[in-house]
Amino acid sequence: MLKPGATIGILGGGQLGRMLALAAARLDLNCHVYSPEKDSCAFAVVRQHTCADYEDASALRRFAEAVDVVTYEFENVPAKTAAFLQRRKQVVPDPKVLETTQDRLVEKDFLRGLKIATAPYAPVHSATQLTDAIAALGLPAVLKTRQLGYDGKGQAKIDRDSDPIAAWRGLQNAPSILEGFIAFEREVSVIVARARDGKVECFDVTENVHRDHILKISSVPAKVTPALAAEARRVATRIAKAFDYVGVLAVEMFVVRSGAKRHVMVNEIAPRVHNSGHWTIDGATVSQFEQHIRAVAGWPLAKPLRLGRVEMTNLIGDEIDEAARWLSVPGAAVHLYGKGAARPGRKMGHVTRVWPARR
Amino acid sequence: MLKPGATIGILGGGQLGRMLALAAARLDLNCHVYSPEKDSCAFAVVRQHTCADYEDASALRRFAEAVDVVTYEFENVPAKTAAFLQRRKQVVPDPKVLETTQDRLVEKDFLRGLKIATAPYAPVHSATQLTDAIAALGLPAVLKTRQLGYDGKGQAKIDRDSDPIAAWRGLQNAPSILEGFIAFEREVSVIVARARDGKVECFDVTENVHRDHILKISSVPAKVTPALAAEARRVATRIAKAFDYVGVLAVEMFVVRSGAKRHVMVNEIAPRVHNSGHWTIDGATVSQFEQHIRAVAGWPLAKPLRLGRVEMTNLIGDEIDEAARWLSVPGAAVHLYGKGAARPGRKMGHVTRVWPARR
Repeated sequence: MLKPGATIGILGGGQLGRMLALAAARLDLNCHVYSPEKDSCAFAVVRQHTCADYEDASALRRFAEAVDVVTYEFENVPAKTAAFLQRRKQVVPDPKVLETTQDRLVEKDFLRGLKIATAPYAPVHSATQLTDAIAALGLPAVLKTRQLGYDGKGQAKIDRDSDPIAAWRGLQNAPSILEGFIAFEREVSVIVARARDGKVECFDVTENVHRDHILKISSVPAKVTPALAAEARRVATRIAKAFDYVGVLAVEMFVVRSGAKRHVMVNEIAPRVHNSGHWTIDGATVSQFEQHIRAVAGWPLAKPLRLGRVEMTNLIGDEIDEAARWLSVPGAAVHLYGKGAARPGRKMGHVTRVWPARR
Repeated sequence: MLKPGATIGILGGGQLGRMLALAAARLDLNCHVYSPEKDSCAFAVVRQHTCADYEDASALRRFAEAVDVVTYEFENVPAKTAAFLQRRKQVVPDPKVLETTQDRLVEKDFLRGLKIATAPYAPVHSATQLTDAIAALGLPAVLKTRQLGYDGKGQAKIDRDSDPIAAWRGLQNAPSILEGFIAFEREVSVIVARARDGKVECFDVTENVHRDHILKISSVPAKVTPALAAEARRVATRIAKAFDYVGVLAVEMFVVRSGAKRHVMVNEIAPRVHNSGHWTIDGATVSQFEQHIRAVAGWPLAKPLRLGRVEMTNLIGDEIDEAARWLSVPGAAVHLYGKGAARPGRKMGHVTRVWPARR
């Protein structure tokens, strides 16, 4: 259990690291951000940072010595980096989780092992396997690289008019999986926190709308029945327990209708704080960032209470120019990440609007 | 109007400066904290700080060059320091306000000029004036030094059994005022923000309970009628306008009953963010700290919406040990200031508990 004044090392210097550090500061916990990118926006809100490659052994060694515990804000921490740090300091959550979540095939197999529904899928490591997979799953389907995909990168939709071999070539013939196309009713996610003592707290189920494969709007409560929301929370909790997870984990799910019944199907696991949980900063009595910091520090989790109806809107690329207008919208909280150039598709900030319940 | 990425200089490095800097970070505004005390807790959450005396001209000059605008977190900024900085950079709110609020007599005269009710008072610069003041105001009464009083320091209650001359000697015969003792029903405060364009936003009236002259608990809503709450907000707004104020200002008031009627009487003005507004971080859609930063940056104010019933408890001295217990209380947000040694009477942190309205 960390004492106030202790230092948490964070691998990754993006907006998630930045918001983790701001949550830690309220609790008198310092953060030391490690990132290879010079203009990492998390550097601006911490007293100590290291700008070095993830393969830089001497920088990693000094980092491990300077902190009391290590965590990460992104799921593509190289396995060697994690192992190197783990020999020197506790890394939370345990990086063994990354072996599962860094690979779509391993992740899907893991979920199947837990009897948690996913889209039907098949491995694609050869043209023959691709043909077999299409035969088994039908079309349309989505071809996804096993590794390093995010925000729609490393994906190709295949329908009856497509050339599947060309689609795979477009992904550099990388080891991939084919997923059956799911005609989902809506997309939801559950942010779950698990403490060192095994206690679990879920935030309310969030409904997500993507645009160009990038999250655009999250709304809470999601338009699902209490029973479905409970099912979604149970699924997220089961995943966190199966990993013996410590920290915050996000589970993205599809709500699928079959006849009159609806159920959830897991799309993706993110072993970190997640964009669809940003609403918790302003819309709940504890944020996903503070829950993660509490878990990493070995502190008890808070029981999150939602403060009203909430809607989070990402400001992507040029949309950052809309921030000035949002400043005057009643109940809107504006968050600017300090990322500099507004490149297309880049998450530059977000706005959370809260409608407090009437008394 | 500051652009994101700009730097706000803050005079003073206590918890108020710390919370201002954390609010600024969300908006991609950096803070540079200036404080003479080496262990200033605000230093830990900013990238740039200056540790130097308020009389250190070369440090002040460098500070002015490094920032885009200057503000302050405490009301006892020396007049010479403020004037020195003002010749080099804009200082917001205008330090001329400090000439009024640093002196209880000038402040009371200012309020009288605005026809705002206060306790009856009389200046005490000599033993004769003290005797005359007691004759005019009666006993009990409270003798207060004109300058540098806070948290009950620089005060002495005088009743029928006291030796008034000895009481004044206890205050080093400093220029003082005698205030008639007010048998108030409750203490309330209004946190008001005023933007550069003159627009004003008040937070909901807060009810305050002091212990040993130090704020212990603030609750919102205050137990006052809507009419009295409106009167309190009008008084605070009138004061902010009279100062042509930019930023956040706190007005402490007594609720006084005369017969069946109640009215407010101003006790003190604090030209800064205020302890009785800490609840706004977790209990409103915008905090007093963000409102101050917005005003100082020339940005529009937010319209604050309260998120439920709220209670803020200060953790004073050893009470910081209670923080661990508060971590598990539903709806409680714990704030630790990182001040090190828990000296008696020292504000070490606070807890805000929110009870969201039921839907």
